Amino acid sequence: MSEPHFNRIALIGIGLIGSSLARVIRAKNLADTIAIATRSEATLKRAEALKLGDSYATSAAEAVRDADLVIVSVPVGASEAVAKEIAGALAPGAIVTDVGSTKASVITQMQPHMPKHVHFVPGHPIAGTEHSGPDAGFATLFAGRWCILTPPPDTDPEAVEKLTRFWEACGSHVDQMDPGHHDMVLAIVSHLPHLIAYNIVGTAEHLEAVSETEVIKYSASGFRDFTRLAASDPTMWRDVCLHNREAILEMLGRFTEDLHALQRAVRFGDGKMLFDLFTRTRDIRRNIIEAGQETAAPDFGRPHEGD
Amino acid sequence: MSEPHFNRIALIGIGLIGSSLARVIRAKNLADTIAIATRSEATLKRAEALKLGDSYATSAAEAVRDADLVIVSVPVGASEAVAKEIAGALAPGAIVTDVGSTKASVITQMQPHMPKHVHFVPGHPIAGTEHSGPDAGFATLFAGRWCILTPPPDTDPEAVEKLTRFWEACGSHVDQMDPGHHDMVLAIVSHLPHLIAYNIVGTAEHLEAVSETEVIKYSASGFRDFTRLAASDPTMWRDVCLHNREAILEMLGRFTEDLHALQRAVRFGDGKMLFDLFTRTRDIRRNIIEAGQETAAPDFGRPHEGD
Repeated sequence: MSEPHFNRIALIGIGLIGSSLARVIRAKNLADTIAIATRSEATLKRAEALKLGDSYATSAAEAVRDADLVIVSVPVGASEAVAKEIAGALAPGAIVTDVGSTKASVITQMQPHMPKHVHFVPGHPIAGTEHSGPDAGFATLFAGRWCILTPPPDTDPEAVEKLTRFWEACGSHVDQMDPGHHDMVLAIVSHLPHLIAYNIVGTAEHLEAVSETEVIKYSASGFRDFTRLAASDPTMWRDVCLHNREAILEMLGRFTEDLHALQRAVRFGDGKMLFDLFTRTRDIRRNIIEAGQETAAPDFGRPHEGD
Repeated sequence: MSEPHFNRIALIGIGLIGSSLARVIRAKNLADTIAIATRSEATLKRAEALKLGDSYATSAAEAVRDADLVIVSVPVGASEAVAKEIAGALAPGAIVTDVGSTKASVITQMQPHMPKHVHFVPGHPIAGTEHSGPDAGFATLFAGRWCILTPPPDTDPEAVEKLTRFWEACGSHVDQMDPGHHDMVLAIVSHLPHLIAYNIVGTAEHLEAVSETEVIKYSASGFRDFTRLAASDPTMWRDVCLHNREAILEMLGRFTEDLHALQRAVRFGDGKMLFDLFTRTRDIRRNIIEAGQETAAPDFGRPHEGD
């Protein structure tokens, strides 16, 4: 199948995801022109200094004019404002997509504003790092990762197909899913892990008996693994929490219930329950490694001093 | 200061920590002879095939005979049995230490059995990976990491000093601490993170709405970070839970309290509380990286497909 090619791709938002897209679009020659828009003058200047696109604007409407693909990569809470801003400038036949971590909310925010002459195909690439901003992106961010599309039922199959081939050209595998199911899946694989990571770092910060210096010095014994997720972009994650509330509350409830059972096993010295849980959980990591979603190297392949 | 040298180091237990010790002792020439003991015939054979030592025994008593340094590296629940077994065979003046993750319990289990003519200096190297067994060890495991010694108040300072220099020769920084304080510190930096990681993997396993296949496919969005800790040795971690009960229950209580506050912020849409927490927690990671306990590379420096 031939690589998809666009005349003009508009990237609205140029953080980690947007700037990784700019780099892979250039590297794979997926568009003649890359138009970049972001509200922040400073970020726009930085994107220009990094030569991420062909044109730069603080107006999203200006960037999407004549674009045949528009990719919105902003915190999910800003989706409606962007939809309103670009609606009147979208070209007939344009594909409009996004990369937001919650899908039902993004659809509620954007779809009412989309003109009939465009194809709105919401999406979510399951890829990222804890770094943010236009400098953090890289062309291989999406390679080997999954991208989930959640097209409304009446979407033109050709538009979905073309966007699918776009993500495949970026190196991704593509799935389709109902938006509600997407939000439930992401609540357990992404949103709950981030919340828990943020939470334990907060707990560690407020101890009277253990100093922050001690937490830092001895963090290699486990704690530091959590700090990567807890270093993620605060605006993005605030918005995820506000826009996937029901699914997150459901997963938090289950997690806490299970944690209480575990706490009870610790309190009453139920070694069998502990051993059984600690044995079962090994399998999932092995399966994740076999699925190509994780490295088998110990310690994530972190460098060791003296290696 | 000259490198410490021992005539005979006995390693009781030859898993990840024991076998890493064997390798670094050999690499840095810290002993004339390395005597290895483990109860498992299969593990002992494997250690011999890997040429980790100079002598191999299933009897810990046999290994410690004439040793001037004995390092017990077994699950903490086995400490008393080892202490009883070796007590009668220990040479006068020998230093006996361990590497257990809990210190008050190990002292309670071992100290009553130690003869007056040996120096008992409990210790805990804050280093490890999720892999277990004699094949998992490597000589640089302790490089740049902290080792905490918790000598009883009346311990001969020369023995403590010699053991300190031993760990420094292995590449570690060495701290001294009260055993109770050690157990509280480790409860937050190590034991709670492991319990939470095991717990969330368990929660994910039991969902009706999300399949295990989905959890695996989309794990790169956060979940997979937790699976590393949840792949750690089940026997070791069962014993940690059973032998650091009070401190773990205290930390679990605080974590849950904080999580309820966070859950409430999600429920009532308190974006400011969420944003403030998510902003503060970034600092700790930066400090851990600056302290040399973590890599600054995104994603722990994991390899990316296509890099």
